[in-house]
Amino acid sequence: MIARLKTDCSIRERAEIVTLIEKAGLRVRIDRGGGSEWIGAFGSDAPRNELLDTLRTLPAVLEIARDASPYPLASRDYFPQSTRVRVGEVEIGEGTPPTLIAGPCAVESRAQMRAAARTVAENGGHLLRGGAFKPRTSPYSFQGLGEAGLELLAEAGREVGLPVVTEVVAPEDVELVASYADVLQIGARNMQNFRLLQAAGRATRPVILKRGHAATLDELMHAAEYVLDAGNPDVILCERGIRSFDPATRATLDLAAVPVLRELTHLPLLVDPSHAAGRRALVPPLARAALAVGADGLLVEVHPDPASALSDGPQALTPDDWKALVASLPALVGGSGAG
Amino acid sequence: MIARLKTDCSIRERAEIVTLIEKAGLRVRIDRGGGSEWIGAFGSDAPRNELLDTLRTLPAVLEIARDASPYPLASRDYFPQSTRVRVGEVEIGEGTPPTLIAGPCAVESRAQMRAAARTVAENGGHLLRGGAFKPRTSPYSFQGLGEAGLELLAEAGREVGLPVVTEVVAPEDVELVASYADVLQIGARNMQNFRLLQAAGRATRPVILKRGHAATLDELMHAAEYVLDAGNPDVILCERGIRSFDPATRATLDLAAVPVLRELTHLPLLVDPSHAAGRRALVPPLARAALAVGADGLLVEVHPDPASALSDGPQALTPDDWKALVASLPALVGGSGAG
Amino acid sequence: MIARLKTDCSIRERAEIVTLIEKAGLRVRIDRGGGSEWIGAFGSDAPRNELLDTLRTLPAVLEIARDASPYPLASRDYFPQSTRVRVGEVEIGEGTPPTLIAGPCAVESRAQMRAAARTVAENGGHLLRGGAFKPRTSPYSFQGLGEAGLELLAEAGREVGLPVVTEVVAPEDVELVASYADVLQIGARNMQNFRLLQAAGRATRPVILKRGHAATLDELMHAAEYVLDAGNPDVILCERGIRSFDPATRATLDLAAVPVLRELTHLPLLVDPSHAAGRRALVPPLARAALAVGADGLLVEVHPDPASALSDGPQALTPDDWKALVASLPALVGGSGAG
Amino acid sequence: MIARLKTDCSIRERAEIVTLIEKAGLRVRIDRGGGSEWIGAFGSDAPRNELLDTLRTLPAVLEIARDASPYPLASRDYFPQSTRVRVGEVEIGEGTPPTLIAGPCAVESRAQMRAAARTVAENGGHLLRGGAFKPRTSPYSFQGLGEAGLELLAEAGREVGLPVVTEVVAPEDVELVASYADVLQIGARNMQNFRLLQAAGRATRPVILKRGHAATLDELMHAAEYVLDAGNPDVILCERGIRSFDPATRATLDLAAVPVLRELTHLPLLVDPSHAAGRRALVPPLARAALAVGADGLLVEVHPDPASALSDGPQALTPDDWKALVASLPALVGGSGAG
Repeated sequence: MIARLKTDCSIRERAEIVTLIEKAGLRVRIDRGGGSEWIGAFGSDAPRNELLDTLRTLPAVLEIARDASPYPLASRDYFPQSTRVRVGEVEIGEGTPPTLIAGPCAVESRAQMRAAARTVAENGGHLLRGGAFKPRTSPYSFQGLGEAGLELLAEAGREVGLPVVTEVVAPEDVELVASYADVLQIGARNMQNFRLLQAAGRATRPVILKRGHAATLDELMHAAEYVLDAGNPDVILCERGIRSFDPATRATLDLAAVPVLRELTHLPLLVDPSHAAGRRALVPPLARAALAVGADGLLVEVHPDPASALSDGPQALTPDDWKALVASLPALVGGSGAG
Repeated sequence: MIARLKTDCSIRERAEIVTLIEKAGLRVRIDRGGGSEWIGAFGSDAPRNELLDTLRTLPAVLEIARDASPYPLASRDYFPQSTRVRVGEVEIGEGTPPTLIAGPCAVESRAQMRAAARTVAENGGHLLRGGAFKPRTSPYSFQGLGEAGLELLAEAGREVGLPVVTEVVAPEDVELVASYADVLQIGARNMQNFRLLQAAGRATRPVILKRGHAATLDELMHAAEYVLDAGNPDVILCERGIRSFDPATRATLDLAAVPVLRELTHLPLLVDPSHAAGRRALVPPLARAALAVGADGLLVEVHPDPASALSDGPQALTPDDWKALVASLPALVGGSGAG
Repeated sequence: MIARLKTDCSIRERAEIVTLIEKAGLRVRIDRGGGSEWIGAFGSDAPRNELLDTLRTLPAVLEIARDASPYPLASRDYFPQSTRVRVGEVEIGEGTPPTLIAGPCAVESRAQMRAAARTVAENGGHLLRGGAFKPRTSPYSFQGLGEAGLELLAEAGREVGLPVVTEVVAPEDVELVASYADVLQIGARNMQNFRLLQAAGRATRPVILKRGHAATLDELMHAAEYVLDAGNPDVILCERGIRSFDPATRATLDLAAVPVLRELTHLPLLVDPSHAAGRRALVPPLARAALAVGADGLLVEVHPDPASALSDGPQALTPDDWKALVASLPALVGGSGAG
Repeated sequence: MIARLKTDCSIRERAEIVTLIEKAGLRVRIDRGGGSEWIGAFGSDAPRNELLDTLRTLPAVLEIARDASPYPLASRDYFPQSTRVRVGEVEIGEGTPPTLIAGPCAVESRAQMRAAARTVAENGGHLLRGGAFKPRTSPYSFQGLGEAGLELLAEAGREVGLPVVTEVVAPEDVELVASYADVLQIGARNMQNFRLLQAAGRATRPVILKRGHAATLDELMHAAEYVLDAGNPDVILCERGIRSFDPATRATLDLAAVPVLRELTHLPLLVDPSHAAGRRALVPPLARAALAVGADGLLVEVHPDPASALSDGPQALTPDDWKALVASLPALVGGSGAG
């Protein structure tokens, strides 16, 4: 829900609206877009109609523009100020130094996670990633360690002092995963698993939402809107490559997605060069290009021993690759990005 | 799991194996492929290792070939005989007359479903379709009537004597949906929602599995394997159009999928011309082409009043369109199809 | 150029316009679309402005609508009556029995062409195809026999009494190829080789124009307009598969192209199932689907001995395959097609 | 043709081979790849067999490996040393500062070209581009000024002291275009116009070869081989976006093409961000990403007044955009690029 306020709205009037929305169990965001001031209510549906009716009676509310955009909460039209998502000490979003998220595709063992965590923490990484629930093409492939994997990931993160990111694949797992992870990831195959989006929208953890293999950017925006509309304002979008006709890479990394999305949305934008590349030699140049095109951070697969990885080994960086990549990145300390 | 039997396996030996598998809570399929006799166990995982160990000790079992193919249960390599899925009086699969499944995109009201059901039943339809849980790109679009929709669908089917098909979008809904529907449908967006595939694999209803927008046929086979491996032998595959660069149609109907899949799998093959076409004028020629290319049946959107439809109206056939289409189809009574 | 005539235009007035256009070296087509009578002038550019000025002074001409459609000459808007292209005894186009064009990918030898020609002629074929100039991905692949190949093709066609079709790959070859061939083919890779389109537009042979690997149907229509605008009214469009992400087939045959193009244009529509399939087993079902979807004919690769073919052997039908395919096709004698 | 030399080949033996090849009218390249020394002969076919027979008799020649790779002349396997193409004072290729090529899509007038040339020359540009022969989707669109355009381009280049690049669209134009232009460009639509590739291969001007809309990188390598094999060693490859399903950009810029091609070939690599972007706001970030991913240079559309451009106005940078872009590029003076 989006409401346009009258231009001379008083602080008291604004406070009244905020209170009404928060009492309805929703979260609030106020910003100025298109010459007007907008107040957005993020959250789920039950009491919404009643709230709308009340808001409509207030003199400070000029209109309720729920359908003014196909994705009003995600759109920059109403919220021109770029969102920064805070995870522990880290801020992710436009204008912050690039956020580096790294770790193995899958959590495999305590030793593996510890080694990975040290590599990431000691070489510029801000968040640690690792998958415990793995969506795999084949039912006979390694499906992840489940909750045991979550524990190992959280433990490794604690040891090195990094927040952790991990994928959630089903609505009924959201609570469990959120109890271990600092950030939830929704993978490409689940970008239009709307139940999962809604469940993640009710969680109190930021959500990294990856673009689907054949999803248009318009569809990605709509998917983000599901999470926002369900009440979670901390959505981070992630380009990770789309399907094309050329088998030269595992997926075609669509870096133009970053400036296109930057215009459309206030949400932070990451790039995952690893899944698109499919093999490690291509990851560093794509990572540098991602920052140059304006991404707010990277999601990179790093494994202490890629040759023994249970999934996606060929695209994982070795610890030495990771160090070299980080060393080659410009503007990691503060700064205004590559351009 | 697939076991290869010795060539002179006795009936008693075979019966012993079947009993062992069924006692483990799994379903059995026996067939002859590649000059050998194979016995497959479909079902979930818990007791499997113990069962494998027991089977390995039997002299009638030559080898356990779980990984002999990337999708042993779906593959025609081991089960060359085409599967026919029975739904009430209807048999779906190679060698049967084409199965016509029709109805509206979404269940909207009792009157709408009744009218649709009559049109379908009185004009050659074998199953009635209608969506109660709708996966929609936007959170603000009509999301279906939920359980109330399931009731209206089941009621309309009963009145005209047709089994009903409807989509299920989340694992936790499978039981509910299966209590109303004769056939579960898993939509394109959920083709790699592996939890949902597994939940549907534990259901006792046949499953229509639609190809994802950007899924290769290899991935579709793997997705089917998830359902089969979880215990449900009654999987029906459905081509419904893939993403391409040309906006001339909503999706590019890949009719070559039918003969390609026919070689790869024993499972029945449907085509949904409606979602690929995106507008009604293209549906009849594509439907005829689908049968000519060898599909075992069609899934077609028919609405009593497309102009008032809450979703996908432009591609729904009117009742008159449906009658004309059915009248134009060859070989509906028995026969061996176009080839 | 397209001129709209006044509704009560007399025969004398119409004859005067036709004479003016023909004197300018252009070809004429008159038809009624959108409630008006239109006269189109097909041909090249030199004297056109003068002609336009003259036509504008005639009271029978209401307007000159060169830009009324992006492709006025190809569009059905002005010329609703379907074009039938005559090649010898054969008529190609909507409402005629499907035209079967078959033969080897490349002309390789007199014996090969003779054998292929006999197979095609004795089993329902209407035109004989064979390539003498082959566009090949690699400079080191067999590039065709050139003029010697044209001679062998023409000779084989004469012996069995079939007109011949062959590809032309460069503007400077059009005259030479047209001196041997009854129909010119422009291949997928050259669909936007505009100089070649223009050269073919000045030829007096019908042109089969194949859709490019990544061409939208809109672009195919524009490409046809190049040929028509250059003076050649006998253009036949051919769907042959587009690029997609799935390697299961060589190209994705987009059969919806047939009904989509049928609405857009009056030109005849062929389908080439061989290049899309990439292997012979898929060709017959795709060929049957192509006729069922409404194509006016087929372009099929047939080789007397595919195993020894110098190009595209895996997708060529054997003589026995071809006989079986033709026997399986419905409605070859007259009739109104599959729907 | 590629010949492997014995390891202790003397200078005299090498000189003899070079002389033999050059006498046959071919160009020579010697390099060491895979532990062997290779000598390549670039050029057209007539006397080749005789030459091969002679070379085979020489003791210094260990083998003639024409088919050792699908594209031996373009491949880095035999020629590991990166090629640098010299155009006037400029060197294009790995290890040189990025080459900036800019100018309008089409040459429109003397005033326009002069203004564009000044903008480019005074703000970091190394070569001036402008199209005189324009391949356009529609026959009714502006097709370029032809030879008059070539004259204006050459004149503008002379005035500001920049070499000029322009597109050639037909084999019969190569000589004419090469008489005005310093570098020939072959556009995306003509990447597999093999006659044109061969004609450009016989020219004495470097050739920029753009990747086709639906061309795999493997096909691009083969296309380059056509030019190299015809005798022209100075081929520069250019990524310019491929077709995908997402209309958010005009084409999907595949920046991974740069590191993939870098492994495959010794040829210089450019990126054209303008055609992929389709609108000017996306060009600067994509240009920066192209250099970050390792491209040897950029091809950018710049127009003194984009609003009045006869083609591709929306994607042309204004002079001010161009200045700002150049100012934002790192490492333009010497340096070893971003990685």
